[in-house]
Amino acid sequence: MQASMYAFSVPVFVKTLGNLSAILGKGAAHAEQKKIDPAVLLAMRLAPDMFPLTMQVRIACDFAKGAVARLAGEEPPKWEDNETTIAELQDRIARTIGFIQGFGPARFDGAEARTVTVTIRGEPVQYAGLAYLAHAVLPNFFFHAATAYDILRHAGVELGKRDFIGKV
Amino acid sequence: MQASMYAFSVPVFVKTLGNLSAILGKGAAHAEQKKIDPAVLLAMRLAPDMFPLTMQVRIACDFAKGAVARLAGEEPPKWEDNETTIAELQDRIARTIGFIQGFGPARFDGAEARTVTVTIRGEPVQYAGLAYLAHAVLPNFFFHAATAYDILRHAGVELGKRDFIGKV
Repeated sequence: MQASMYAFSVPVFVKTLGNLSAILGKGAAHAEQKKIDPAVLLAMRLAPDMFPLTMQVRIACDFAKGAVARLAGEEPPKWEDNETTIAELQDRIARTIGFIQGFGPARFDGAEARTVTVTIRGEPVQYAGLAYLAHAVLPNFFFHAATAYDILRHAGVELGKRDFIGKV
Repeated sequence: MQASMYAFSVPVFVKTLGNLSAILGKGAAHAEQKKIDPAVLLAMRLAPDMFPLTMQVRIACDFAKGAVARLAGEEPPKWEDNETTIAELQDRIARTIGFIQGFGPARFDGAEARTVTVTIRGEPVQYAGLAYLAHAVLPNFFFHAATAYDILRHAGVELGKRDFIGKV
Protein backbone atom coordinates (compact mmCIF):
# COMPACT_ATOMS: atom_id res chain seq x y z
CA MET A 1 0.00 0.00 0.00
CA GLN A 2 1.20 3.50 -0.85
CA ALA A 3 1.54 6.41 1.52
CA SER A 4 -1.53 8.54 0.83
CA MET A 5 -3.87 11.02 2.42
CA TYR A 6 -6.26 8.12 2.96
CA ALA A 7 -3.65 5.87 4.61
CA PHE A 8 -2.77 8.58 7.14
CA SER A 9 -6.36 9.47 7.99
CA VAL A 10 -9.24 6.97 7.88
CA PRO A 11 -7.45 3.81 9.11
CA VAL A 12 -5.45 5.78 11.68
CA PHE A 13 -8.59 7.34 13.16
CA VAL A 14 -10.58 4.11 13.05
CA LYS A 15 -7.89 2.27 14.97
CA THR A 16 -7.33 4.84 17.70
CA LEU A 17 -11.05 5.59 18.10
CA GLY A 18 -11.74 1.87 18.53
CA ASN A 19 -9.02 1.71 21.17
CA LEU A 20 -10.48 4.81 22.86
CA SER A 21 -13.90 3.16 23.03
CA ALA A 22 -12.37 0.11 24.72
CA ILE A 23 -10.46 2.39 27.12
CA LEU A 24 -13.75 4.08 28.06
CA GLY A 25 -15.22 0.62 28.59
CA LYS A 26 -12.45 -0.13 31.10
CA GLY A 27 -13.27 3.19 32.78
CA ALA A 28 -16.91 2.14 33.08
CA ALA A 29 -15.93 -1.24 34.54
CA HIS A 30 -13.60 0.46 37.01
CA ALA A 31 -16.35 2.85 38.12
CA GLU A 32 -18.76 -0.03 38.63
CA GLN A 33 -16.24 -2.09 40.58
CA LYS A 34 -15.24 0.82 42.84
CA LYS A 35 -18.80 2.12 43.14
CA ILE A 36 -17.82 5.46 41.60
CA ASP A 37 -20.46 7.44 39.72
CA PRO A 38 -19.19 7.30 36.09
CA ALA A 39 -20.21 10.97 35.78
CA VAL A 40 -17.30 11.74 38.12
CA LEU A 41 -14.86 10.20 35.63
CA LEU A 42 -16.49 12.06 32.74
CA ALA A 43 -16.06 15.38 34.54
CA MET A 44 -12.42 14.82 35.49
CA ARG A 45 -9.73 17.15 34.16
CA LEU A 46 -5.96 17.29 34.53
CA ALA A 47 -6.09 21.03 35.25
CA PRO A 48 -9.00 23.34 36.09
CA ASP A 49 -8.71 25.11 32.74
CA MET A 50 -8.42 21.96 30.65
CA PHE A 51 -11.41 20.18 29.14
CA PRO A 52 -12.94 17.25 31.03
CA LEU A 53 -12.90 13.69 29.71
CA THR A 54 -16.24 14.03 27.91
CA MET A 55 -14.96 16.94 25.82
CA GLN A 56 -11.63 15.27 25.09
CA VAL A 57 -13.51 12.35 23.53
CA ARG A 58 -15.91 14.58 21.59
CA ILE A 59 -13.08 16.68 20.19
CA ALA A 60 -11.06 13.63 19.14
CA CYS A 61 -14.16 12.37 17.29
CA ASP A 62 -14.74 15.76 15.69
CA PHE A 63 -11.19 16.10 14.40
CA ALA A 64 -11.53 12.71 12.71
CA LYS A 65 -14.99 13.45 11.28
CA GLY A 66 -14.07 16.97 10.21
CA ALA A 67 -10.79 16.01 8.60
CA VAL A 68 -12.16 13.14 6.56
CA ALA A 69 -15.14 15.12 5.31
CA ARG A 70 -13.12 18.23 4.43
CA LEU A 71 -10.31 16.32 2.76
CA ALA A 72 -12.97 14.63 0.62
CA GLY A 73 -14.38 18.05 -0.26
CA GLU A 74 -17.48 17.93 1.94
CA GLU A 75 -18.66 20.04 4.82
CA PRO A 76 -18.69 17.82 7.95
CA PRO A 77 -22.06 17.22 9.61
CA LYS A 78 -22.60 18.93 12.96
CA TRP A 79 -23.48 16.65 15.84
CA GLU A 80 -24.93 17.79 19.13
CA ASP A 81 -22.65 17.67 22.16
CA ASN A 82 -25.16 16.03 24.46
CA GLU A 83 -23.52 12.87 25.78
CA THR A 84 -23.88 12.36 29.53
CA THR A 85 -22.79 8.73 29.92
CA ILE A 86 -19.84 6.60 28.92
CA ALA A 87 -22.15 4.51 26.71
CA GLU A 88 -23.27 7.66 24.88
CA LEU A 89 -19.66 8.67 24.29
CA GLN A 90 -18.95 5.20 22.94
CA ASP A 91 -21.94 5.65 20.66
CA ARG A 92 -20.47 8.93 19.36
CA ILE A 93 -17.21 7.11 18.69
CA ALA A 94 -19.09 4.35 16.85
CA ARG A 95 -20.97 6.94 14.76
CA THR A 96 -17.67 8.66 13.96
CA ILE A 97 -16.09 5.39 12.87
CA GLY A 98 -19.13 4.58 10.74
CA PHE A 99 -19.08 8.03 9.16
CA ILE A 100 -15.40 8.04 8.24
CA GLN A 101 -15.47 4.47 6.98
CA GLY A 102 -17.91 5.73 4.37
CA PHE A 103 -15.02 7.53 2.65
CA GLY A 104 -12.90 5.21 0.52
CA PRO A 105 -9.39 5.92 -0.81
CA ALA A 106 -10.72 7.36 -4.10
CA ARG A 107 -12.37 10.20 -2.20
CA PHE A 108 -8.91 11.44 -1.25
CA ASP A 109 -7.54 11.81 -4.77
CA GLY A 110 -5.91 15.23 -4.92
CA ALA A 111 -6.66 15.91 -1.26
CA GLU A 112 -3.04 16.97 -0.61
CA ALA A 113 -3.58 20.16 -2.55
CA ARG A 114 -7.28 20.70 -1.77
CA THR A 115 -7.89 23.95 0.06
CA VAL A 116 -9.52 23.26 3.39
CA THR A 117 -11.22 26.02 5.35
CA VAL A 118 -11.80 25.72 9.07
CA THR A 119 -13.03 28.25 11.60
CA ILE A 120 -10.60 28.91 14.44
CA ARG A 121 -11.74 31.30 17.16
CA GLY A 122 -14.36 32.70 14.81
CA GLU A 123 -11.94 33.34 11.94
CA PRO A 124 -11.79 31.33 8.71
CA VAL A 125 -8.36 29.74 8.25
CA GLN A 126 -7.27 28.04 5.05
CA TYR A 127 -4.83 25.20 4.68
CA ALA A 128 -3.59 22.98 1.92
CA GLY A 129 -4.92 19.49 2.62
CA LEU A 130 -1.52 17.98 3.35
CA ALA A 131 -0.54 20.60 5.95
CA TYR A 132 -4.02 20.40 7.44
CA LEU A 133 -3.80 16.64 7.98
CA ALA A 134 -0.12 16.38 8.95
CA HIS A 135 0.25 19.48 11.11
CA ALA A 136 -3.21 20.36 12.40
CA VAL A 137 -5.40 17.25 12.45
CA LEU A 138 -3.06 14.43 13.50
CA PRO A 139 -1.46 16.37 16.40
CA ASN A 140 -4.89 17.54 17.61
CA PHE A 141 -6.54 14.15 17.22
CA PHE A 142 -3.83 12.33 19.15
CA PHE A 143 -3.58 15.14 21.70
CA HIS A 144 -7.22 14.70 22.71
CA ALA A 145 -7.19 10.90 22.53
CA ALA A 146 -4.01 10.68 24.65
CA THR A 147 -5.37 13.23 27.13
CA ALA A 148 -8.55 11.16 27.51
CA TYR A 149 -6.34 8.16 28.29
CA ASP A 150 -4.22 10.25 30.68
CA ILE A 151 -7.31 11.45 32.58
CA LEU A 152 -8.47 7.87 33.13
CA ARG A 153 -4.97 6.74 34.14
CA HIS A 154 -4.77 9.63 36.57
CA ALA A 155 -8.17 8.57 37.93
CA GLY A 156 -6.76 5.13 38.74
CA VAL A 157 -8.20 3.09 35.89
CA GLU A 158 -5.93 0.14 35.10
CA LEU A 159 -4.72 0.79 31.59
CA GLY A 160 -1.45 0.35 29.76
CA LYS A 161 -0.10 2.01 26.66
CA ARG A 162 -1.05 -1.13 24.77
CA ASP A 163 -4.69 -0.12 25.28
CA PHE A 164 -3.95 3.12 23.46
CA ILE A 165 -1.83 1.68 20.65
CA GLY A 166 -3.61 -1.61 20.11
CA LYS A 167 -2.26 -4.34 17.88
CA VAL A 168 -0.24 -3.05 14.91
CA MET B 1 3.65 18.56 -2.08
CA GLN B 2 2.55 14.95 -2.27
CA ALA B 3 1.51 12.76 0.64
CA SER B 4 4.58 10.63 1.33
CA MET B 5 6.35 8.75 4.05
CA TYR B 6 8.64 11.77 4.38
CA ALA B 7 5.78 14.29 4.67
CA PHE B 8 4.21 12.31 7.51
CA SER B 9 7.43 11.82 9.44
CA VAL B 10 10.34 14.30 9.40
CA PRO B 11 8.40 17.62 9.26
CA VAL B 12 5.75 16.32 11.68
CA PHE B 13 8.36 15.32 14.25
CA VAL B 14 10.43 18.47 13.79
CA LYS B 15 7.41 20.65 14.41
CA THR B 16 6.10 18.89 17.51
CA LEU B 17 9.57 18.42 19.00
CA GLY B 18 10.26 22.12 18.58
CA ASN B 19 6.97 22.89 20.32
CA LEU B 20 7.86 20.41 23.08
CA SER B 21 11.18 22.16 23.66
CA ALA B 22 9.38 25.50 24.05
CA ILE B 23 6.86 23.87 26.41
CA LEU B 24 9.74 22.61 28.55
CA GLY B 25 11.15 26.13 28.49
CA LYS B 26 7.87 27.41 29.93
CA GLY B 27 8.13 24.70 32.58
CA ALA B 28 11.62 25.91 33.50
CA ALA B 29 10.43 29.53 33.71
CA HIS B 30 7.49 28.47 35.88
CA ALA B 31 9.80 26.56 38.23
CA GLU B 32 12.11 29.54 38.56
CA GLN B 33 9.24 31.95 39.18
CA LYS B 34 7.61 29.71 41.78
CA LYS B 35 10.93 28.66 43.31
CA ILE B 36 10.25 25.01 42.53
CA ASP B 37 13.22 22.70 41.96
CA PRO B 38 12.91 21.82 38.24
CA ALA B 39 13.85 18.26 39.18
CA VAL B 40 10.41 18.03 40.83
CA LEU B 41 8.73 18.75 37.51
CA LEU B 42 10.96 16.26 35.69
CA ALA B 43 9.99 13.51 38.15
CA MET B 44 6.23 14.19 37.98
CA ARG B 45 3.90 11.50 36.69
CA LEU B 46 0.14 11.34 36.13
CA ALA B 47 -0.04 7.93 37.84
CA PRO B 48 2.48 6.02 39.96
CA ASP B 49 2.99 3.42 37.24
CA MET B 50 3.34 5.89 34.39
CA PHE B 51 6.66 7.31 33.23
CA PRO B 52 7.77 10.69 34.60
CA LEU B 53 8.19 13.76 32.43
CA THR B 54 11.86 13.06 31.66
CA MET B 55 11.04 9.66 30.19
CA GLN B 56 8.05 10.96 28.22
CA VAL B 57 10.36 13.43 26.47
CA ARG B 58 13.10 10.84 25.86
CA ILE B 59 10.65 8.35 24.40
CA ALA B 60 9.05 10.93 22.11
CA CYS B 61 12.55 11.75 20.82
CA ASP B 62 13.40 8.09 20.38
CA PHE B 63 10.27 7.30 18.39
CA ALA B 64 11.15 10.13 15.99
CA LYS B 65 14.83 9.16 15.72
CA GLY B 66 14.09 5.45 15.44
CA ALA B 67 11.34 5.83 12.87
CA VAL B 68 13.27 8.11 10.54
CA ALA B 69 16.42 5.96 10.64
CA ARG B 70 14.57 2.67 10.17
CA LEU B 71 12.33 3.97 7.39
CA ALA B 72 15.51 5.11 5.61
CA GLY B 73 16.98 1.63 6.05
CA GLU B 74 19.41 2.44 8.85
CA GLU B 75 19.76 1.22 12.39
CA PRO B 76 19.07 4.19 14.72
CA PRO B 77 21.95 5.31 16.93
CA LYS B 78 21.58 4.59 20.64
CA TRP B 79 21.79 7.59 22.93
CA GLU B 80 22.32 7.41 26.66
CA ASP B 81 19.38 8.24 28.90
CA ASN B 82 21.30 10.53 31.23
CA GLU B 83 19.48 13.88 31.21
CA THR B 84 18.90 15.36 34.65
CA THR B 85 17.87 18.92 33.78
CA ILE B 86 15.35 20.61 31.53
CA ALA B 87 18.21 22.11 29.50
CA GLU B 88 19.63 18.64 28.91
CA LEU B 89 16.26 17.38 27.73
CA GLN B 90 16.03 20.34 25.38
CA ASP B 91 19.48 19.40 24.11
CA ARG B 92 18.27 15.86 23.42
CA ILE B 93 15.34 17.31 21.49
CA ALA B 94 17.72 19.55 19.51
CA ARG B 95 19.97 16.57 18.72
CA THR B 96 16.92 14.58 17.61
CA ILE B 97 15.76 17.37 15.33
CA GLY B 98 19.27 17.69 13.89
CA PHE B 99 19.49 13.94 13.33
CA ILE B 100 16.16 13.56 11.55
CA GLN B 101 16.67 16.68 9.46
CA GLY B 102 19.65 14.84 7.96
CA PHE B 103 17.22 12.56 6.12
CA GLY B 104 15.77 14.15 2.99
CA PRO B 105 12.70 12.99 1.06
CA ALA B 106 14.74 10.78 -1.29
CA ARG B 107 15.77 8.59 1.65
CA PHE B 108 12.14 7.54 2.02
CA ASP B 109 11.68 6.20 -1.52
CA GLY B 110 10.03 2.81 -1.14
CA ALA B 111 9.81 3.17 2.63
CA GLU B 112 6.11 2.18 2.60
CA ALA B 113 7.02 -1.40 1.78
CA ARG B 114 10.37 -1.58 3.57
CA THR B 115 10.39 -4.20 6.31
CA VAL B 116 11.17 -2.59 9.64
CA THR B 117 12.24 -4.68 12.62
CA VAL B 118 11.87 -3.38 16.14
CA THR B 119 12.36 -5.09 19.48
CA ILE B 120 9.28 -5.06 21.70
CA ARG B 121 9.62 -6.60 25.15
CA GLY B 122 12.70 -8.48 23.99
CA GLU B 123 11.06 -9.95 20.88
CA PRO B 124 11.77 -8.86 17.31
CA VAL B 125 8.61 -7.58 15.60
CA GLN B 126 8.41 -6.84 11.88
CA TYR B 127 6.23 -4.27 10.18
CA ALA B 128 5.80 -2.92 6.70
CA GLY B 129 7.04 0.67 6.76
CA LEU B 130 3.61 2.22 6.19
CA ALA B 131 1.93 0.35 9.06
CA TYR B 132 4.94 1.06 11.27
CA LEU B 133 4.71 4.82 10.70
CA ALA B 134 0.92 5.22 10.63
CA HIS B 135 -0.09 2.77 13.37
CA ALA B 136 2.91 2.41 15.67
CA VAL B 137 5.12 5.48 15.44
CA LEU B 138 2.69 8.39 15.08
CA PRO B 139 0.36 7.24 17.89
CA ASN B 140 3.32 6.57 20.18
CA PHE B 141 5.14 9.77 19.33
CA PHE B 142 2.10 11.95 19.97
CA PHE B 143 1.11 9.92 23.03
CA HIS B 144 4.41 10.72 24.76
CA ALA B 145 4.55 14.34 23.57
CA ALA B 146 0.96 15.00 24.70
CA THR B 147 1.56 13.26 28.02
CA ALA B 148 4.62 15.46 28.62
CA TYR B 149 2.38 18.48 28.00
CA ASP B 150 -0.34 17.02 30.24
CA ILE B 151 2.14 16.49 33.09
CA LEU B 152 3.25 20.13 32.96
CA ARG B 153 -0.36 21.36 32.72
CA HIS B 154 -1.26 19.21 35.70
CA ALA B 155 1.74 20.73 37.53
CA GLY B 156 0.27 24.20 37.01
CA VAL B 157 2.46 25.46 34.18
CA GLU B 158 0.56 28.01 32.09
CA LEU B 159 0.23 26.40 28.70
CA GLY B 160 -2.45 26.22 26.06
CA LYS B 161 -3.03 23.76 23.27
CA ARG B 162 -1.52 26.30 20.93
CA ASP B 163 1.83 25.60 22.58
CA PHE B 164 1.44 21.97 21.57
CA ILE B 165 0.15 22.52 18.04
CA GLY B 166 2.12 25.63 17.10
CA LYS B 167 1.46 27.60 13.97
CA VAL B 168 0.20 25.50 11.04
